[in-house]
Amino acid sequence: MSETVKLTLDEVRALSLEVLTNSGFGANHAAAIADMLTTCQIDDCQSHGLFRLFMCVQTMQAGKIDGHAAPVVTPSDNAIVRVDAQGGMSLLAFQEALPVLIEKTRAHGIAAMAINRCFHFSALWPEVERLSAAGLAAMAMVPSHSWVAPAGGTRGSLGTNPLAFSWPRRGKDPFTFDFATSAFARGEIELYHRAGKPLPEGVAIDRDGNPTTDPQAALDGAMLTFGGYKGSALSIMIELLAGPLIDDLTSLESMEFAAGAGGAPYHGEVILAFDPEQFSGGRVVENDARAERLFSDIIDQGARLPSQRRFAARARNTARGYVEIAKPLHDDLRALGKQG
Amino acid sequence: MSETVKLTLDEVRALSLEVLTNSGFGANHAAAIADMLTTCQIDDCQSHGLFRLFMCVQTMQAGKIDGHAAPVVTPSDNAIVRVDAQGGMSLLAFQEALPVLIEKTRAHGIAAMAINRCFHFSALWPEVERLSAAGLAAMAMVPSHSWVAPAGGTRGSLGTNPLAFSWPRRGKDPFTFDFATSAFARGEIELYHRAGKPLPEGVAIDRDGNPTTDPQAALDGAMLTFGGYKGSALSIMIELLAGPLIDDLTSLESMEFAAGAGGAPYHGEVILAFDPEQFSGGRVVENDARAERLFSDIIDQGARLPSQRRFAARARNTARGYVEIAKPLHDDLRALGKQG
Repeated sequence: MSETVKLTLDEVRALSLEVLTNSGFGANHAAAIADMLTTCQIDDCQSHGLFRLFMCVQTMQAGKIDGHAAPVVTPSDNAIVRVDAQGGMSLLAFQEALPVLIEKTRAHGIAAMAINRCFHFSALWPEVERLSAAGLAAMAMVPSHSWVAPAGGTRGSLGTNPLAFSWPRRGKDPFTFDFATSAFARGEIELYHRAGKPLPEGVAIDRDGNPTTDPQAALDGAMLTFGGYKGSALSIMIELLAGPLIDDLTSLESMEFAAGAGGAPYHGEVILAFDPEQFSGGRVVENDARAERLFSDIIDQGARLPSQRRFAARARNTARGYVEIAKPLHDDLRALGKQG
Repeated sequence: MSETVKLTLDEVRALSLEVLTNSGFGANHAAAIADMLTTCQIDDCQSHGLFRLFMCVQTMQAGKIDGHAAPVVTPSDNAIVRVDAQGGMSLLAFQEALPVLIEKTRAHGIAAMAINRCFHFSALWPEVERLSAAGLAAMAMVPSHSWVAPAGGTRGSLGTNPLAFSWPRRGKDPFTFDFATSAFARGEIELYHRAGKPLPEGVAIDRDGNPTTDPQAALDGAMLTFGGYKGSALSIMIELLAGPLIDDLTSLESMEFAAGAGGAPYHGEVILAFDPEQFSGGRVVENDARAERLFSDIIDQGARLPSQRRFAARARNTARGYVEIAKPLHDDLRALGKQG
């Protein structure tokens, strides 16, 4: 970043709240979204931090989201907590169902949260890290829009379908990853397009289904999954578990629902949580040591665990009490905050 | 295959039982293993069919397996069924715990089976397909031996760590995949070695951690994961969920336990099952239609669903009542069956 602005965490939150409230989000939604953006900004996760305020505003402008929706948690005796976001942003629904998911995981050993009828714009790692902070392992999945072709295909059927996972480590940052099953993020292709640079081979096809390195042709065509037919299979699994399993839209249906309007896609989300205490028969300490030995073996050979850069940023930004964002972004967001 | 032998399913099972019994497996284990090999052979899954009898015999010869071990299912009130294979092959343990897993999934909506202290040689797809045949979605994971380097690493830390998934489809073969998270199967590298052919780029490193296409250097070094850092992250997740989560060995520990002896690796296995009825709030029919639309969209563009070739073989072999295996394999197995 060339020119940056330093913001305290309170300033990040206040700026977020201003933009969100002015654009039509009620206080509860604005607070849940501001918390998420602040969490991402602490970790220097710029792509999912304050920058996402534009998408939140666009989602409101597209006219389908309810900025005041009150999520409804369905009571159940089983290990599934279903929460209906009622057409609001996903984060408030997650927040309200999280204590129930934790309670159900401790009661049943394994449990799941299904969020329905939500708009979704956010990173998944902050959610699985809420669970690992509670001593549970967790996995999260969402569909998106059908921008991604299946292996051997010629057009988009699948979403960017991220998979996130977090594993608790005592006294340490958790083991966490959060990756799109598309070979490239859609935002990255847009950056290549703006820079006039060709894409790497193997990330996209044009509208005729032929391989392309032209960013515009890729945006008009489809992205490919990472890892060939294996990544494609994984992406289909995510469509099924975060869509039809939980009575919610596939990426194909979500794209149709949006009908070309911008902003966040509308669909469901599924989160699985695992209690190490019950899975290990009470032998958590011994098995933590076993996991740590694996992590050490990976690090000792010079490889990195996922999220290490993010945790380093978190430690640095937390210690110094501020984060840095690009000045043009800050200028644009302040202007957005003034609009009514 | 140049010259083949036709075997009825009864003959496949009888040949398996003969080899297994003669090598020291008790009747219950021999039956469970023979069922698995027959299931694979019906689908022309040659790599995990009768060919695996050699590995079963090698496992017995390595001297650590108990061919008569009686699996012990631990009673529980939660959604986890833990079954101790007691140092036997995994399949009998799976078979005995399967009804409990199905019952727990119907009771809790989501449930898990943890198999501990088992030797493991088999494909995972027949297990997740037992669950999809019962109307449940299922995922299975196992570690193996630490032949696979993490992304950015120089030596093996991870197993080939397969992930299998199956989704029930009414009146149709299920949507199923079962893939190793290594870029290549270890057996494939051995085939390249025997054929004196170079490996493709990007599947292996030598013992110094440098990329190699030499099969022997790869066998002395390590395999890479599929899909770069994403496949590597996924593989680490599988190590954690099928190892430390369930109080069982990582691939590093499994390799140490084997201490160079051949045969199947010794470790744990985890299987997750999901009840669509409960996850969807009773809207299974509507959501089946939604999933089918996704499958149609994939197939209509000329892409294949995973396992389509296997299901075609199943239909053909079931209709004609026999399977074909290579004659040299059949000769070798008959000789093995005669040995005491």
